[in-house]
Amino acid sequence: MTVKITTLDNGLRIITDDIPGILSASLGLWVDVGARYESPEVNGISHFLEHMAFKGTTSRSAKQIAEEIENVGGHLNAYTSKENTAYHARVLENDVPLALEIIADIIQNSTFEPVEVEREREVILQEIGQAHDTPDDIIFDYFQETAFPNHPLGRPILGSPDNVRRIQQGDLKKYMTQEYSAARMIFAATGAVKHEQIVDLCQKHFAKLSNHETKNYEKSSYQGGHFFQNRQLEQVHLLLGYESCPYGHPDFFPLSVFSSLLGGGMSSRLFQEVREKRGLVYSVYSFNTSFRDAGVFGIYAGTGEKQVDELLPTVKNVLETFPNTLEDKELDRSKAQLKAGILMSLESTSSRCEQLAQQMLIYKRHISPQEIIEKVNTVTRENVIDVAQRLISKSPTFVSIGPGKERRWS
Amino acid sequence: MTVKITTLDNGLRIITDDIPGILSASLGLWVDVGARYESPEVNGISHFLEHMAFKGTTSRSAKQIAEEIENVGGHLNAYTSKENTAYHARVLENDVPLALEIIADIIQNSTFEPVEVEREREVILQEIGQAHDTPDDIIFDYFQETAFPNHPLGRPILGSPDNVRRIQQGDLKKYMTQEYSAARMIFAATGAVKHEQIVDLCQKHFAKLSNHETKNYEKSSYQGGHFFQNRQLEQVHLLLGYESCPYGHPDFFPLSVFSSLLGGGMSSRLFQEVREKRGLVYSVYSFNTSFRDAGVFGIYAGTGEKQVDELLPTVKNVLETFPNTLEDKELDRSKAQLKAGILMSLESTSSRCEQLAQQMLIYKRHISPQEIIEKVNTVTRENVIDVAQRLISKSPTFVSIGPGKERRWS
Repeated sequence: MTVKITTLDNGLRIITDDIPGILSASLGLWVDVGARYESPEVNGISHFLEHMAFKGTTSRSAKQIAEEIENVGGHLNAYTSKENTAYHARVLENDVPLALEIIADIIQNSTFEPVEVEREREVILQEIGQAHDTPDDIIFDYFQETAFPNHPLGRPILGSPDNVRRIQQGDLKKYMTQEYSAARMIFAATGAVKHEQIVDLCQKHFAKLSNHETKNYEKSSYQGGHFFQNRQLEQVHLLLGYESCPYGHPDFFPLSVFSSLLGGGMSSRLFQEVREKRGLVYSVYSFNTSFRDAGVFGIYAGTGEKQVDELLPTVKNVLETFPNTLEDKELDRSKAQLKAGILMSLESTSSRCEQLAQQMLIYKRHISPQEIIEKVNTVTRENVIDVAQRLISKSPTFVSIGPGKERRWS
Repeated sequence: MTVKITTLDNGLRIITDDIPGILSASLGLWVDVGARYESPEVNGISHFLEHMAFKGTTSRSAKQIAEEIENVGGHLNAYTSKENTAYHARVLENDVPLALEIIADIIQNSTFEPVEVEREREVILQEIGQAHDTPDDIIFDYFQETAFPNHPLGRPILGSPDNVRRIQQGDLKKYMTQEYSAARMIFAATGAVKHEQIVDLCQKHFAKLSNHETKNYEKSSYQGGHFFQNRQLEQVHLLLGYESCPYGHPDFFPLSVFSSLLGGGMSSRLFQEVREKRGLVYSVYSFNTSFRDAGVFGIYAGTGEKQVDELLPTVKNVLETFPNTLEDKELDRSKAQLKAGILMSLESTSSRCEQLAQQMLIYKRHISPQEIIEKVNTVTRENVIDVAQRLISKSPTFVSIGPGKERRWS
């Protein structure tokens, strides 16, 4: 076992996995802050903050941040999701101390200079435009909004253009001071790293981080419903979903198996029926996305305007006939796919790093690949049928973008 | 050195890299066949053929192909580019023989049943629709068409909808018989593989492949020009490019360094000037794409309708001022980025597999990471300035999609 965990006095948790024979390291800070912690007035601020972390600190300009990491051939990047913000780097072995120090600098000493806030506002407005122009991307925003109306989980990570135009230096400073508490952070590092070195460096660069109480998140409230946007496109993009379960819920692994066998690969029921037998789509897949206290299970398909009326009853039939036709070999195959996926993901330092950080944020401990495989193995035929039946008996969320008239899921 | 090469009697070349400590293997067949080998009447057939390889052989149905590989948690996939078609898999160590045998089956024994051709035709038409709906994807097709009008390099990999509607079983069989010759194929395998085992398995499953003369490709003829498509979008998507160089040309590495420092990362000139200083874009980057006897260098940007008129002179100024303002530290940084990228790519079995296959197809030999690093090291300041000046002195290709009126590059 090469995974090691240390907690600093201020509550910052450090998790590492030293993988032998690897020349590079992935490392980063994961923060338990994202769109779901935002009030409607500041929706988009977690993401705005993430952008501003690259725009200058008390000792480095934006350009210096970019140059210092790229001088050594490293990459520095960040993302914001509904529940997390991550600042992560990939560098060669010797450059781990530099990358760690830069990450520590940008999340503790950013100045949010007003002139930089103004420029970055424009960049984010362009990012919103780009997402809007990509129908199979923006449909996920419409889906969340329809599933969780008037709730932070339903609001876009990028925020509305109006909010982005309004956020100022003071808002960013206030939000960061309130939300960025050491106890809500994980520092993870994998690949060519030594645990003791990472701990020493974190002690040096993160020890001053404050650890204070932060307000709790607003409990989720799934509702579901319909949404349609008419656009002059070649395809109708469709997303059907249902309320599923949070992380750690007993339904989580049965749902993962169900998603894999319904729409997880070429042998899955949806791929076989919708694409292989009927040629109705190029892309069709299912997914389960879990949050702290909620989850959504969904099916995406992109089809032609003429094909929609065949696609919808076909998907409906696949969902309804599933419980009475499930074969053991399908169950075994889905489990094999999940288990191989777990083992293969260990071979990428960046996905391993992400995985360790997420486990610490969600479960507050490391979960070994063997433990996950064991959980997949114990899923029974009855578990999967039960979870699938309960899922589709609930209120659906049905979202579409494209030409023609609105279709509804009934 | 763990890379080994063996050539079978029929000319099939096998290259492997056994990487210790890895549980999975990436393996596949790369074929020197793609859109550039197609006549206008059958443009799209290489890609259609790649799709049909999954639709049934003399001994397996489409469903069996999918099930057999996914029963063991493996993935089987394929892609077609301008010059290559690849069929590749990722599996756990023990499933290498199965994956290899399935790849051998689908590329030698596919039946192209008319009923399956009809279904797959619909899938490909949906794929064309999906690409069309993604402006920052389809813009690359428009770009190639404008750069190489009336030439195979200018025609879309997916083909036109009309061609896709016309291709029949007979066309597919004829094209495959003509083009799929053993001497145009590389079998590559990396990760948890043993060279001798791969050679034995290839001997068993690929020895019957015919090795025949195939016609040569039509020589390239870059022209350049302008193209604009008015669409109701949030952003104007722009792609500016110039003729660059083929693989193996002395300009290749200087161009790679130039692309990296012009638009390769956060510290690059375009990112700093266009995004960081002016907030005109979310995405801006440059690239060099080389073919056997041609190449294109390009710059992509997505901006707002109001921002286009500031963006274009800004990009022009970055290109024109570059030769007189190049700093040694920029040059060093770009080289460091390229070299670290080479080392980091060795850590992914799938990118390593792709790399080995491409080297064998293009250079007919393995090129070690050390040799590539040495080539990057020898690039001088003068090389980069010279290549950049020659590049932008030539006829441009300028393509845009979005709202408003056409802008031209002059």
